[in-house]
Amino acid sequence: MKRTITVILTLAALITANSALAQGQGGQRLTPQLMAQLFPQGVKSPEYNSDGSVTFRCQAADAQKVELECQMFSGNRPMTRNERGVWEITVTPDQPDIYPYCFVIDGTQVADPNNMFIFPNEGFKYSLADVRGEAPSMQDMQQVPHGKVSYRYYHSKQLGFDRPLCVYTPAGYDPAGKEKLPVLYLIHGMTDTYETWFKVGRVNIIMDNLIAQGLAKRMIIVMPYANPNPEIQARGLNIPQDIMGTDVFCKEITEEVIPFIESNYNVLTKADNRAIAGFSLGGRQTLACGFGNPDKFHYVCAYAPAIFGNEYETNFQNGTYAPIKDLQKKLKLMWLGTGSDDFLIQASRGLDSYLTEQGLKHTFYNPGGGHTWMNCRDYIELTAKELFK
Amino acid sequence: MKRTITVILTLAALITANSALAQGQGGQRLTPQLMAQLFPQGVKSPEYNSDGSVTFRCQAADAQKVELECQMFSGNRPMTRNERGVWEITVTPDQPDIYPYCFVIDGTQVADPNNMFIFPNEGFKYSLADVRGEAPSMQDMQQVPHGKVSYRYYHSKQLGFDRPLCVYTPAGYDPAGKEKLPVLYLIHGMTDTYETWFKVGRVNIIMDNLIAQGLAKRMIIVMPYANPNPEIQARGLNIPQDIMGTDVFCKEITEEVIPFIESNYNVLTKADNRAIAGFSLGGRQTLACGFGNPDKFHYVCAYAPAIFGNEYETNFQNGTYAPIKDLQKKLKLMWLGTGSDDFLIQASRGLDSYLTEQGLKHTFYNPGGGHTWMNCRDYIELTAKELFK
Repeated sequence: MKRTITVILTLAALITANSALAQGQGGQRLTPQLMAQLFPQGVKSPEYNSDGSVTFRCQAADAQKVELECQMFSGNRPMTRNERGVWEITVTPDQPDIYPYCFVIDGTQVADPNNMFIFPNEGFKYSLADVRGEAPSMQDMQQVPHGKVSYRYYHSKQLGFDRPLCVYTPAGYDPAGKEKLPVLYLIHGMTDTYETWFKVGRVNIIMDNLIAQGLAKRMIIVMPYANPNPEIQARGLNIPQDIMGTDVFCKEITEEVIPFIESNYNVLTKADNRAIAGFSLGGRQTLACGFGNPDKFHYVCAYAPAIFGNEYETNFQNGTYAPIKDLQKKLKLMWLGTGSDDFLIQASRGLDSYLTEQGLKHTFYNPGGGHTWMNCRDYIELTAKELFK
Repeated sequence: MKRTITVILTLAALITANSALAQGQGGQRLTPQLMAQLFPQGVKSPEYNSDGSVTFRCQAADAQKVELECQMFSGNRPMTRNERGVWEITVTPDQPDIYPYCFVIDGTQVADPNNMFIFPNEGFKYSLADVRGEAPSMQDMQQVPHGKVSYRYYHSKQLGFDRPLCVYTPAGYDPAGKEKLPVLYLIHGMTDTYETWFKVGRVNIIMDNLIAQGLAKRMIIVMPYANPNPEIQARGLNIPQDIMGTDVFCKEITEEVIPFIESNYNVLTKADNRAIAGFSLGGRQTLACGFGNPDKFHYVCAYAPAIFGNEYETNFQNGTYAPIKDLQKKLKLMWLGTGSDDFLIQASRGLDSYLTEQGLKHTFYNPGGGHTWMNCRDYIELTAKELFK
């Protein structure tokens, strides 16, 4: 019931004004009329219409201009204002999916206040429009056994403080049972958080559905928080890192996260049962950790990795990545996926060519689409089917 | 790395412009200079200063007026604009705590885009300023064994779809061990979600610390989602409910949530080991479920419950609540907490007097403060110490 201070003041005024309520006379109960007074209906947004369109609404009485910025389409679309100061637009996506969006009110990006589904991020606040199709897709919750996502904390010795991560365990996971599970370490993108693969990537729902249909192996998925810097700064610590913090992150994964998972979960602990995957900056970290530690990870999946130019070549040459021969011998899967409209596609094409030249067996998946979580959900669905088989 | 479309366009432009990068010539690697170009530093907000003050910053170049609305103080405070269009204010709270806040840009409330800590809610988007004191408090993460919070899904037969909830299990909880735990069912306020007691109430951190210090019994805490209406509407279902949905919610707790928990967790299943607590609308639901089912709950804790006038008297008279005699006989704890500045204080005072008159032993905790989560964290800390003893 803690809404805005405005609402509380309205409530307080109403209650003070109404002596029957304030003084407890007459046993007055809540009526629909009183409810409507006490809790004025907010605007409904987004509203999913039966024809597949979506109506977005934004209360901004004083604004000069409100636009919808939505990954259903490129460019912003103007919203129109009604007499109550509610701005509205109805749009129809090409296909059902989960689309990040925000309102742009006089030039400022604003999450939809009436939508509880938020894109976890350090640098922006988008909302999520969940446009469902006639038939449920792999990312829609279906009536199948559900795994769970647990928020846990481990102590990082290298950083000196406790850190959060999310862990997906499939339905029926038994911490003391005979079944030991393989583990996928799954990394978010720059400015994302350890929650983004769960809340935006829907990895738990996708896995529940894939497992229920027999399309993926049962596995545990670990989603660490790749960016320790907010907490490092809050504590005033000085921890040297390379440009993108890849060195600290790889150490974090191999020396802190893996031991935590392997001592707290009923898992298989050989490289054949360990995968690493990540999006964007997480894709860069995946290549660094995966290609850098072929004794630890036998499955490496990079989704639109943030590599620049032919940096991969340099990384092989200077020993950041293991020699190609090692990878040839050890990797069970090297999977690269980047959309044709992704601003990082050039480097992915370069990496694909380089690996082909060097004779490292790999998959290069190059669908349409850009640097988006719509694509990411596609990537994780496809790769999950190939892991640990 | 998926930031805003603006940033992606900037990146794309930079990459296109830079032929060395785009064409992969010369093995160019990321340098700090290139990093600064590619990822321009966003504004830092909030910034926690060493003197205990906090600086909030908001980039809104086109705005006429930007204010800080923060539960550190009442009323909004004007922010000032620098030459780069960044609005700023530095404030010092009376005491360290976790304060909800937002920016008001030309009249519209906006969450802080640069702060990853969000107040989960259906009707507004606040951010959280975590102002820490010299010594860690009960709501600060300390180096103690940490429990976990799991996001789970159960099938609701009455509603016909799968529903989410959060479950806190203390460190060392063993699903197959000899130790069976008592259970607290903990309900959020109106427009809050099943995440709010976790993300804003910090109940897991508070419990970790209380348990580590031997101040609270080990227990499982279940945080259901009291509002099924968004999903009911998305599915176009028609499910009759009373004015505040209390009837459907109580049925949900007693017939759906409790059986799910008791068949999936290693818990004690007698009323002596079951507690219910809730804030605001959740306090109303707590009274309805708790006073309505003394055979199921022997601990009832209402935090600023949303009862109006002397509704409680009516509820006893019309049988929504069990007879006082039943409660006298069965309840181990009846705890009511409401701040003196809470807009619901009148009804709490009335309930306190009524229970005193009727001879039902109870605690009425009436500190300062209003209808806030600063108070809520205080309430849960105090009551957790008294549960199951």
